[in-house]
Amino acid sequence: MKLPSRVKLVDVGPRDGLQNEKQPVPAEVKIGLVHRLQEAGLKNIEVTSFVSPKWVPQMADNAEVMAGIERRADVCYSVLTPNMKGFEAALPSRPDEIVVFGAASEAFSQRNINCSIAESIERFAPVVQAAREHGIHVRGAISCAVGCPYEGEVAPERVELVARLMKQIGVQHVGVADTIGVGTPRKVQRALEAALRHYGLDDVSGHYHDTYGQALANTLASLELGVWQYDTSSAGLGGCPYAKGATGNVATEDVVYLLHGMDIETGIDLDRLIDAGKYISDYLERKPNSRASTALLNKRHG
Amino acid sequence: MKLPSRVKLVDVGPRDGLQNEKQPVPAEVKIGLVHRLQEAGLKNIEVTSFVSPKWVPQMADNAEVMAGIERRADVCYSVLTPNMKGFEAALPSRPDEIVVFGAASEAFSQRNINCSIAESIERFAPVVQAAREHGIHVRGAISCAVGCPYEGEVAPERVELVARLMKQIGVQHVGVADTIGVGTPRKVQRALEAALRHYGLDDVSGHYHDTYGQALANTLASLELGVWQYDTSSAGLGGCPYAKGATGNVATEDVVYLLHGMDIETGIDLDRLIDAGKYISDYLERKPNSRASTALLNKRHG
Repeated sequence: MKLPSRVKLVDVGPRDGLQNEKQPVPAEVKIGLVHRLQEAGLKNIEVTSFVSPKWVPQMADNAEVMAGIERRADVCYSVLTPNMKGFEAALPSRPDEIVVFGAASEAFSQRNINCSIAESIERFAPVVQAAREHGIHVRGAISCAVGCPYEGEVAPERVELVARLMKQIGVQHVGVADTIGVGTPRKVQRALEAALRHYGLDDVSGHYHDTYGQALANTLASLELGVWQYDTSSAGLGGCPYAKGATGNVATEDVVYLLHGMDIETGIDLDRLIDAGKYISDYLERKPNSRASTALLNKRHG
Repeated sequence: MKLPSRVKLVDVGPRDGLQNEKQPVPAEVKIGLVHRLQEAGLKNIEVTSFVSPKWVPQMADNAEVMAGIERRADVCYSVLTPNMKGFEAALPSRPDEIVVFGAASEAFSQRNINCSIAESIERFAPVVQAAREHGIHVRGAISCAVGCPYEGEVAPERVELVARLMKQIGVQHVGVADTIGVGTPRKVQRALEAALRHYGLDDVSGHYHDTYGQALANTLASLELGVWQYDTSSAGLGGCPYAKGATGNVATEDVVYLLHGMDIETGIDLDRLIDAGKYISDYLERKPNSRASTALLNKRHG
């Protein structure tokens, strides 16, 4: 079986990760994290979201963070823009990519973004159109693509439906997200295959949570389908609001260790990545939630 | 690719796990763990080792533990017996299986069992012969099959050599152990393939540590080779003496979650297994080192 020889990782720590912190992290610390990630070789960073600070106070400093980054021409900086208001607010920050967030589960859509799946697509349509008119790349996230905290297992047909609707409104890339980390290799493959019915291999990525410890096995299974783009989070930032105290996003460090061990290129310097994860973990006064980082930091200190 | 439809897990928690505890665990607690594991459906349990209490005080109660277990006819109870003295001490405890411990790394063999690989095989030979004369099954562990804390990467040829030597002296089954957890899927597959040159698929098992978070990805890669037997440790018992503070044996709970999610039978009741892991973790005053257990325990308590 031929695996991809190169993989692109999108570090979602500054956004998806830090959004889950009770105490908002200061803009300068977020900027420090973004700088360290790009120094480690990350070419794709999900920086912040443009949503109401009433709902997500953790991201209220979105414009400040975007303005504070010393941007590199070869790095893609993404931001979440759930609606036109968010998109318009984001525009002066010149994001390279925007992300719209849909769900494969009706119940999750209702509770997470207060509308049905169909309504969410309607709401995204003008955002997608506006972004594309501005030459901004559009990524769509399909959350709860394997399981939902309210509905349980999610059928691949639901993923296919959302992928089809996203394709219709001009979303260029879809991310298949196992938001609550319940997926196992075959289930994740079936969800990816559903998205691949509407998008090519270059336009589908995997987004896995390590809540049940399955994220790297799911990544391997995805590589075996040829999927070569993944969202990961430095230091495993981001808890799981649906499983208190549990692990959230898979750690970038663990995925890089896996990939490099399989001779798959990422362009990332694992040592510097560990420094980036250590930087933000030190700020948060906790240990990096990454086994590779833990083992390598222990080794450093003999 | 056809995966095994059924997998056999050997829970090594009572031995490989608890041997790594600084404070010896009382015999009655070990017996309590073994009972809970067999109630959860484990049919193979590595109970203790018969080694000098001077070297491994944690296992000084070996005979007491073996005598205290309410044995079931369909459960295989294994014990480690590194030499004839250990074997003779183990015999009255009527183990169903003995385990001899070799290494694929010369430096590790020297430091761990104070002799060369060749000398270790010589030492095992009479043990193996005696065990087989008593109708006791013999398993050989090949530790450091992927990497060694002293030598770094270990070549598959070294694994092949040890497997060949073990075959020659009558060892019936070999376990390919990534003792320090540095392996990634292709490297682990190459180590297994090396063992498979001398043993059939029914006589090779995988033993992975989750030190770098790779154990489940390595398990998936091994399943893809048809390997259907694995050593795992309830609650992830067992640290890694070569990476202080790091994770050791992969948690049985995480592996069962993976397998059941892929519709692979184990005969294990995950809920009761979590109870077993919780029992020993409560005694040790720590949380189970298993992400699946953490997530499911959180769910139980809503």
